[in-house]
Amino acid sequence: MLQETPNPNPDLSLLCLPRTVAMVGASDDPASIGGRALINLMQHSAFDGELMLVNPKREQVAGMRCWPDVASLPLTPDVVMISVPAAHVNGVLRQCAARGVHFAIVFSSGFGETGAEGQRLEAEMRSIAAGSDLRIYGPNCPGLCNINERVGFTFSPSFPHDLRRGPVGLATQGGGLGRNVLQAMDRGLGVGLWCSSGNEVDLQVSDFIAHMADAADIEVIVTLIEGIKDGRKFIRAVQRAAANGKPVVALKVGRSAYGQRAALSHTGSITGAAEVNSALFKQLGVIEVDDIDELADMAALLARARPPLRARQVAVYCSSGGASALTADMIGLAGIGLASFDAATTQVLAENLPSYAALGNPVDTTTATLTDDRLIDKTLLAVCCDPNVSLVLMPVTIDYGDVTVKVAESVVRVQAQSPVPIVPVWMSSRLGDGHRIYAEAGLVPVASVGKAVKTVKRWLDHGVWLAARAADAGSLPFEPLLLRMRARDEPGPARTLNEYEGKALLRRAGIAVPDSGVARTPDEALQLAERIGYPVVAKVVSAGITHKFDVGGVALDLANGEQLLDAWERIHHAVSRAMPGVPIDGLLIEAMAPSGGVETLVGVSRDAVFGPVLTFGLGGIHVELFRDVARRVLPLSRSEAAAMVREIRAFPLLDGLRGRPLADVPALIELLLKVSGFVAAHPGQIDEMDLNPVWVGRLGQGARPLDAVVVGRFGAKPLA
Amino acid sequence: MLQETPNPNPDLSLLCLPRTVAMVGASDDPASIGGRALINLMQHSAFDGELMLVNPKREQVAGMRCWPDVASLPLTPDVVMISVPAAHVNGVLRQCAARGVHFAIVFSSGFGETGAEGQRLEAEMRSIAAGSDLRIYGPNCPGLCNINERVGFTFSPSFPHDLRRGPVGLATQGGGLGRNVLQAMDRGLGVGLWCSSGNEVDLQVSDFIAHMADAADIEVIVTLIEGIKDGRKFIRAVQRAAANGKPVVALKVGRSAYGQRAALSHTGSITGAAEVNSALFKQLGVIEVDDIDELADMAALLARARPPLRARQVAVYCSSGGASALTADMIGLAGIGLASFDAATTQVLAENLPSYAALGNPVDTTTATLTDDRLIDKTLLAVCCDPNVSLVLMPVTIDYGDVTVKVAESVVRVQAQSPVPIVPVWMSSRLGDGHRIYAEAGLVPVASVGKAVKTVKRWLDHGVWLAARAADAGSLPFEPLLLRMRARDEPGPARTLNEYEGKALLRRAGIAVPDSGVARTPDEALQLAERIGYPVVAKVVSAGITHKFDVGGVALDLANGEQLLDAWERIHHAVSRAMPGVPIDGLLIEAMAPSGGVETLVGVSRDAVFGPVLTFGLGGIHVELFRDVARRVLPLSRSEAAAMVREIRAFPLLDGLRGRPLADVPALIELLLKVSGFVAAHPGQIDEMDLNPVWVGRLGQGARPLDAVVVGRFGAKPLA
Repeated sequence: MLQETPNPNPDLSLLCLPRTVAMVGASDDPASIGGRALINLMQHSAFDGELMLVNPKREQVAGMRCWPDVASLPLTPDVVMISVPAAHVNGVLRQCAARGVHFAIVFSSGFGETGAEGQRLEAEMRSIAAGSDLRIYGPNCPGLCNINERVGFTFSPSFPHDLRRGPVGLATQGGGLGRNVLQAMDRGLGVGLWCSSGNEVDLQVSDFIAHMADAADIEVIVTLIEGIKDGRKFIRAVQRAAANGKPVVALKVGRSAYGQRAALSHTGSITGAAEVNSALFKQLGVIEVDDIDELADMAALLARARPPLRARQVAVYCSSGGASALTADMIGLAGIGLASFDAATTQVLAENLPSYAALGNPVDTTTATLTDDRLIDKTLLAVCCDPNVSLVLMPVTIDYGDVTVKVAESVVRVQAQSPVPIVPVWMSSRLGDGHRIYAEAGLVPVASVGKAVKTVKRWLDHGVWLAARAADAGSLPFEPLLLRMRARDEPGPARTLNEYEGKALLRRAGIAVPDSGVARTPDEALQLAERIGYPVVAKVVSAGITHKFDVGGVALDLANGEQLLDAWERIHHAVSRAMPGVPIDGLLIEAMAPSGGVETLVGVSRDAVFGPVLTFGLGGIHVELFRDVARRVLPLSRSEAAAMVREIRAFPLLDGLRGRPLADVPALIELLLKVSGFVAAHPGQIDEMDLNPVWVGRLGQGARPLDAVVVGRFGAKPLA
Repeated sequence: MLQETPNPNPDLSLLCLPRTVAMVGASDDPASIGGRALINLMQHSAFDGELMLVNPKREQVAGMRCWPDVASLPLTPDVVMISVPAAHVNGVLRQCAARGVHFAIVFSSGFGETGAEGQRLEAEMRSIAAGSDLRIYGPNCPGLCNINERVGFTFSPSFPHDLRRGPVGLATQGGGLGRNVLQAMDRGLGVGLWCSSGNEVDLQVSDFIAHMADAADIEVIVTLIEGIKDGRKFIRAVQRAAANGKPVVALKVGRSAYGQRAALSHTGSITGAAEVNSALFKQLGVIEVDDIDELADMAALLARARPPLRARQVAVYCSSGGASALTADMIGLAGIGLASFDAATTQVLAENLPSYAALGNPVDTTTATLTDDRLIDKTLLAVCCDPNVSLVLMPVTIDYGDVTVKVAESVVRVQAQSPVPIVPVWMSSRLGDGHRIYAEAGLVPVASVGKAVKTVKRWLDHGVWLAARAADAGSLPFEPLLLRMRARDEPGPARTLNEYEGKALLRRAGIAVPDSGVARTPDEALQLAERIGYPVVAKVVSAGITHKFDVGGVALDLANGEQLLDAWERIHHAVSRAMPGVPIDGLLIEAMAPSGGVETLVGVSRDAVFGPVLTFGLGGIHVELFRDVARRVLPLSRSEAAAMVREIRAFPLLDGLRGRPLADVPALIELLLKVSGFVAAHPGQIDEMDLNPVWVGRLGQGARPLDAVVVGRFGAKPLA
């Protein structure tokens, strides 16, 4: 499942801004792909490199000489654009490889997305790339737009309409959704570079994230992904972005079964487990959004201002009392704090606004600011400069035409002097000139209060992540186990260890498990219990039985030998009835956990894209009914382990809720770290662990797995 | 707290379309309120009734004669508009009342929203209305727009710009948010009547909902509320709308503490408990939305088509594979079903779309439909006509200019023949001519996939409500207890019954409680236990102790007399230590519930706006950590009681989750109904009930409260 491409971080500078370009399939027909790509490059781009055309059937296209093939070109191009039919593409690519071309952009479709023959062609294409220095972009892609340099290698007729420069880099798979993000330019979003990698036979979204992480003109990276093909590459790319101080905003399709199926049919992408994706995004500081318009909202705000690391409170400034109440309401529901103003701020508001205005936060200026926009210059600036305010949300309730234009002009003036971003919320369906003024000034109005509040919340949350990361400075950056795992799994079939084997393994890893032994006879059981000390637990040991409880295979709290012998009989009787013919290897006799304590669950699974993942939660119904779990891609740092425990909604049960004793959270954190370390020590070997329940005693009593299922590839020899 | 106005359902027809109107404060100054209102009525309205002007300082205004006061008018106006300063308003209102005017619209502000003097003026205003036939609209309001008749009694300069007629009635308190909804006309929303009742000294939002429920030209009612002043009136109004087949869509501000505070400062509204509002909305079929743009989205869809009562599945039709995957994904996350197409539909798709198109649901037509829009006429219509499809979502990913216009024209053509609504999702920030074509045809494009999916989900859910309501036909409609409660509460102070009194009350109401008695001596305790049968429970009885467990006042599972006597000592010792000096009245000796069973919680509280409310959930942490409860305004019907039990996320614990025994859900439902009946039998008396835990045994074992706190006004005599 784990796929890795040979050269993890190719230098894509020449792809994004080549000196020499050839177009194979050049055409005069403006309705053809080759024709449109030519128009975009020759008429709408500021490309000042060398352009060469290839078309064996024509002497000239667009007044330029045509060469019969790549081999005969007078210069070796940095980039070759290809728009010939699918069947001819690989022939062209071979010529490119032979000629030493650096990059091929394959517009043509008719590959993996169409079936078996297309998939065969893609496999061939992949081997051409692997066997040469040629890197392939596409196929089935709309091309690449370097907007900051105004150069488009694309056949999209929309190219000349979406050219607002800016610090946002956009890396998508599909072309339609990518172009949709570009059209947020009409709200003022500036995009410097758009890469849309189509079927990704070679170059992937992650390669472009990595490129943008280093690109001088890109400050915020936006990505839209159906499937992450190479987990390692993605992790390295976003960590590089974070190291260079560039936030990554992501929309990941495939969070429901319908979405997964549709993505598979669209780009053949396996979407991966949504919960694992989201957990990894959180760990790496990737800001995940729910809808495509939220990508632009989020990127625009990040491009305007990085979130504060502390004092994360906002202000609302509005001329409608109703809209300010609505906005404050949604801010409250989102758990964002409204700043308390300093006295100086309140004084400026009081001196300039009518007596019936609301001077607190939210500020309801009343319509006074509609009739006299100079009031905005004074009062909005005061709010922006208040030291407690990190951002000002400004709901624009109604498009009043000229009045709204004047307001917008004032806000733009104030923004120029403001230390914090002002986010206009254009609430109306009417997009008049006021909207244009906000957009042109780069204030990127958000289209609804709800979307604006979501964006602000994510922005503030990213500040929390940045602060935690800054606090971790000096310690090593997070390096997922996947990066250390061998590309191939340990050979041999996976097997499920029985409880005793599993616990022995845990004990050797330094994880405290209850004292125990396997008894094959009643006498052995009594001897074991004497050694361990009553009360004890007895559990059936059988390779054929996974759910011991369900077949009557468990007896708890056995206080003495009499009860133990009684349990021996009961268990054998019940198991034989429930599963006739299944051999019983004996009973596991184990120390009973002290009464009280909280039962939790610790699981490890292996994600096909990101490797080992740890899940923590309270046992039983908390997981099953409420899905109240915390997840992290392994390994865990101490602070991550502590955060996981505190992240579940049921945490108060461990933390003294309503007079409960404090649970041994330090021991639980230690256990999580040891499980993580155990998996790390055996990369590629552990497929699955299910420690359920993990008993957590009172502070000082410790935490230990009472049951353990371990599945892995241990080969013939036992684990060290 | 419960406020009731004298005439619950005034006939507002004359207010919305009067024959004679007077304007007090008429002015030639177009910047003044009186001047703008005159321009709106004379220049922009199609008003063909009689207009008279009042201004004691002027002989003429706008070329029309001015009268010095209302008394001297030649005719008695149906409606008088008032824009004089606050201090003079009540004088004018008295003249109106004396003259027999039906309605006064008070534009003027400076009343309750400004402080004590304004509140005094409002009280005076209220008494003028109460002592006459004059009904007052406002003050501090923008007026009223009867758009279907093109008549505006409003000073808003926006009036002439927002005149798209339609079947939606809009009732708001604040003017700004109301006007915002009107501007959704730019997306194609048609609004027939907008009432914005400002400070609501007399006429309230509910009066207008009731009016719209009867108005022939209104089919869908939209309301935006900061505070519901009169719960009875609101309930009657929305039930009238439901009876007349008109859905009500509501946005209620004040769901967070910030929102509540802001609403109070804006219109002086007490917002009420959000959970109770939402519960009542659900019971009455009021469709609650989260954001103001969602009001227009929802109303537009309902105005176009009522939701299906069965076969609630949808289709997605799109020319972008990425957008169709994204939309399918969000549909899956929302729990909506994608329809499976009939073979005939698939055949049409296969015959007309390219081989690489996705013919399932979502349909990805590929860009073939962009180059040949006739394909849309065939294939989209086939999808619309599929018998399994209730609605078609059509994401429009990108604004391609002319191409998008052609697509929109095709869609509008198909819609004209389609039996189900097509909902375009205009995903781009660029609003080109294609958007206008959808809007003009009344297809009201939604602005994001997320918002569209939310709207469709609510639409389908409303179909579920309608189906349940249809199934209930023949049974009485839901009549909240509030409607039967006396306006005044039972006199006397509330008191908290002790557990024994409380349970006695429940027993008399037919609710099974464990057999019990109060023992004042150890001997009495032994006798009681003998009679009840061991095992028993002992609990301290003391007026001064509410949390018996916390002070060591409870002993469970006492198996014999010895253990009981031991418990007697222990409890007395523990309670005396924990609460020295608090008198102990004895111990409650009670039958112990059989082991097993599930502990639940049943509570009754009294909402200031809507009366008694019942809360059901699993006890303890389910409520505290997960807020996993169901709420209903009382009384409960049998189907509501059953729905409540099934609504909580923890329901599987009662329903055999993982081999658990089935709980006695029928007995639990019976108990809920009896609690409801008990409260109904004592309207105004019960302030609060807390039955926690309510033990629910296995099927056949019954359900009974193990503890009960009842707070109420029982006067001197015991309850019957």
